[in-house]
Amino acid sequence: MTDALLGAVQAGVEVVDLGRQLRVGMPQSPNHPAFWHTLPRRHGDMVRSDGSSAANDMITTGTHVGTHIDALAHVSFDGKMHGGVDAVAAGVGGKYDELGVHTIAPMVRRGVLLDVAGHLGVEHCEGGYEITVADLEATSARQGVEVGEGDVVLIRSGWGSRFAEGAPYVGGPSGVPGVGEAGAQWLADRRVHAAGADTIAFERLAPGGGHALLPAHRVLLVEAGIYIVEALDLEGLAATGWAEFTFVLVPLNIYGATGSPVRPLAIRSAATA
Amino acid sequence: MTDALLGAVQAGVEVVDLGRQLRVGMPQSPNHPAFWHTLPRRHGDMVRSDGSSAANDMITTGTHVGTHIDALAHVSFDGKMHGGVDAVAAGVGGKYDELGVHTIAPMVRRGVLLDVAGHLGVEHCEGGYEITVADLEATSARQGVEVGEGDVVLIRSGWGSRFAEGAPYVGGPSGVPGVGEAGAQWLADRRVHAAGADTIAFERLAPGGGHALLPAHRVLLVEAGIYIVEALDLEGLAATGWAEFTFVLVPLNIYGATGSPVRPLAIRSAATA
Amino acid sequence: MTDALLGAVQAGVEVVDLGRQLRVGMPQSPNHPAFWHTLPRRHGDMVRSDGSSAANDMITTGTHVGTHIDALAHVSFDGKMHGGVDAVAAGVGGKYDELGVHTIAPMVRRGVLLDVAGHLGVEHCEGGYEITVADLEATSARQGVEVGEGDVVLIRSGWGSRFAEGAPYVGGPSGVPGVGEAGAQWLADRRVHAAGADTIAFERLAPGGGHALLPAHRVLLVEAGIYIVEALDLEGLAATGWAEFTFVLVPLNIYGATGSPVRPLAIRSAATA
Amino acid sequence: MTDALLGAVQAGVEVVDLGRQLRVGMPQSPNHPAFWHTLPRRHGDMVRSDGSSAANDMITTGTHVGTHIDALAHVSFDGKMHGGVDAVAAGVGGKYDELGVHTIAPMVRRGVLLDVAGHLGVEHCEGGYEITVADLEATSARQGVEVGEGDVVLIRSGWGSRFAEGAPYVGGPSGVPGVGEAGAQWLADRRVHAAGADTIAFERLAPGGGHALLPAHRVLLVEAGIYIVEALDLEGLAATGWAEFTFVLVPLNIYGATGSPVRPLAIRSAATA
Repeated sequence: MTDALLGAVQAGVEVVDLGRQLRVGMPQSPNHPAFWHTLPRRHGDMVRSDGSSAANDMITTGTHVGTHIDALAHVSFDGKMHGGVDAVAAGVGGKYDELGVHTIAPMVRRGVLLDVAGHLGVEHCEGGYEITVADLEATSARQGVEVGEGDVVLIRSGWGSRFAEGAPYVGGPSGVPGVGEAGAQWLADRRVHAAGADTIAFERLAPGGGHALLPAHRVLLVEAGIYIVEALDLEGLAATGWAEFTFVLVPLNIYGATGSPVRPLAIRSAATA
Repeated sequence: MTDALLGAVQAGVEVVDLGRQLRVGMPQSPNHPAFWHTLPRRHGDMVRSDGSSAANDMITTGTHVGTHIDALAHVSFDGKMHGGVDAVAAGVGGKYDELGVHTIAPMVRRGVLLDVAGHLGVEHCEGGYEITVADLEATSARQGVEVGEGDVVLIRSGWGSRFAEGAPYVGGPSGVPGVGEAGAQWLADRRVHAAGADTIAFERLAPGGGHALLPAHRVLLVEAGIYIVEALDLEGLAATGWAEFTFVLVPLNIYGATGSPVRPLAIRSAATA
Repeated sequence: MTDALLGAVQAGVEVVDLGRQLRVGMPQSPNHPAFWHTLPRRHGDMVRSDGSSAANDMITTGTHVGTHIDALAHVSFDGKMHGGVDAVAAGVGGKYDELGVHTIAPMVRRGVLLDVAGHLGVEHCEGGYEITVADLEATSARQGVEVGEGDVVLIRSGWGSRFAEGAPYVGGPSGVPGVGEAGAQWLADRRVHAAGADTIAFERLAPGGGHALLPAHRVLLVEAGIYIVEALDLEGLAATGWAEFTFVLVPLNIYGATGSPVRPLAIRSAATA
Repeated sequence: MTDALLGAVQAGVEVVDLGRQLRVGMPQSPNHPAFWHTLPRRHGDMVRSDGSSAANDMITTGTHVGTHIDALAHVSFDGKMHGGVDAVAAGVGGKYDELGVHTIAPMVRRGVLLDVAGHLGVEHCEGGYEITVADLEATSARQGVEVGEGDVVLIRSGWGSRFAEGAPYVGGPSGVPGVGEAGAQWLADRRVHAAGADTIAFERLAPGGGHALLPAHRVLLVEAGIYIVEALDLEGLAATGWAEFTFVLVPLNIYGATGSPVRPLAIRSAATA
């Protein structure tokens, strides 16, 4: 007898890729080491006696680069991480044994898209726009979807459509749209498992303000223990019209790190004629 | 009406992690840049005006390090990659535009475990042991599972139980067990989508022979266009007794790279009482 | 009997540092991997039984970053490097065995400063200004110094005073001052050993033109076999008023690389009362 | 009138290179990130409209790799670095503002070679051999050279002749020869400026003992404020027979780092017929 999950998979699924392609020069926060990829060995560099050759790669990168997840160890407030863990002491040894990205279990669970830009009828919210609780609730109602405990909630501001522009995506003078403290609290009240957005820092960045204050990070990572996923590509997902789906996210299991590049998926059973 | 896949997920699933934890100093091939992780910023290094601080990471690594997938661009034979692509020309520019790891679609499909060590009744096959077609067929028969087109086949030699030993896992004097050309051809004949093993190079390495000759790589990557997954942790999966399952693997979308670290999952609907 | 050189050293020398400090975030060309430095281990991370602890570093960087020297392998023209070496063939294997930075002998020789900005009476030449042969000759005459065969000639445009500004130093819209093809030919005619400047690319960059055309690199590196030193700090040297001095430059001996970060010195016997 | 130093240089000098070539795979301590070099861009990857192309590099490395210098920030004892600086507090921020390698002035000063292996008449001292004060004094007497205040003293055990062997150079089971606490104290008593050796850790390593205890590091770096230079190539210098010379060492000016790769030089006026 076939496993129910495998049966559903074999009946056909559609997969939407929510991750950005990792390319040298892509927009990212200057606070983090830049992504770089190079080929130390190319075909023809060293040919084996049987005529074969192998090419390989070298990568250097921060972990909060490209589409990525923030582990709870990423942020502290008043010297404490989530659960009251002493933040300075936790870093001694150079690995966050507690709350590092290796403690995030692979996610295979319900995902919900809140397409705020779609609801507002704009290509993208303006830089610095704060997505309000009213926006979240109206979007949810319009889409006929409830945010439930344990869900992963993806908030689309449309700002991700600017990723290819490079520097403007990062914000700087314009700021970046996103939820503020109130929106983060709304998510925390619903006890979601993780929250994501199509922007570089998940939350609203004020014009010219950079990353100086990140209250939603405090609410989610420190107070509520909710993971944050950033720099998602939600354009393709919005185009599907899916409001709920199976969400899969598997962080690299980097011992003691504060985050990981990820390539999350939204999956649904294929439509049948 | 709930999506069938999401329904199966919400009814409960069990997830088995097939990826190795990425740690500085773990065993890997010296042909590839070593994995290294460090914290450029720790909590307390820079505290913002609101009392928050953020820690971050820097990673350098090869892509054929830890549990990883080989893109078709990884290996060439007689100057050609899969499909007759000119291997030297393909590398000009420093990215494998064709056959790079960015061309591997995320995998959500049937996985099959062939627990050869379990079938043979050994903790692990010996170094240099070639897993034969007869071994593969007997294991398959014993487990009552057929390998089908499009499947991902994971071959357990038990050698992965030695990962924590470090250098011995890599082989060197002892060699490493695995399929040879014949086993690879058997997989290719079944038109599998990808093949994986719990060893560093997927295929048999002769004692003292290193990576000098890799015929299974030629058969799979170059001739058949079948991806290879290496350094899997199959110990937990073997313990479940699952012979088939939903296999999920999402490579990092690194433009032009020859491989990617991955953390594959085996998933099944949770057993109900 | 004391060695003459050592006698001169022991009689007292003044050393002027011509290298920029390597800091994360310093201005550099985006064509090269960014300089990054982090501490994998800090004091207190691991204390030995005797109470000692050691801190260490990880660096990632391009080699044409900060003050650096270009090896002859850095540039080719019409498929040839200096001496007619086939440029593509030379790179096979991933190391420039010929003409790599490992082939540059440490330099201990006469250096000459041509302070063009000082001669012109400007804080710095304007972006895009081409330093002409007439400028070089007038500066040389004014300073009473001849450029001779085997010398290292340092050309000060004053643009280096803008290093701390960051992006403007790199040029972009403004361009960067420097010699053009004619000035490079003048240096080549004098058979200098190396030529340096206080700018990111040694030669004039046209406003908005970036690094699209680099004729002085062709003349010096490819045709004449003269090394180029870039991003020098010549402000302190100009303040000394020295027109000639002992120039010391020791590239890192990186096998097969196209350049190296360096920290050159100008040295003179200390003035005596 | 020519500067005295420049006059000595122009009369002719002989330069002996004391640095190891940086190559992927060279022996180094596993405590430090490995040296890696790759070419992100090779000739032909991107040809400009005028027919020119540029190749470039990416480097990742620890700083205590290859021939290198230890800054005073490298080691602490009982929580203090040299001068009583609090070692943990000094690292907050991720840079050693105090005592980092950027605080080491370029060295142009008297160097003295103590060729202990030559004195003892051995190719190299045995692994684990402690070079005693008596050895240092006898070597000094035999060579007719006094160690003076401010000198840089280079101690040759001959172990450097094993560098090309790889792993044996690092020691491990055999241990490594070098001075112990007594020899370090002898150097400190003479108020030398820096001390170097042809071994990976400057001081004696006991067979099988690894880097567990490093008393000479404590004496020199922490107590006396004397820099340590490691993994020197002293074979060529020993062959010259020079006992004293001008020593030049210019660390990379890496802000806040604990060390730097270096390529020191020994220089003398050329012998005249």
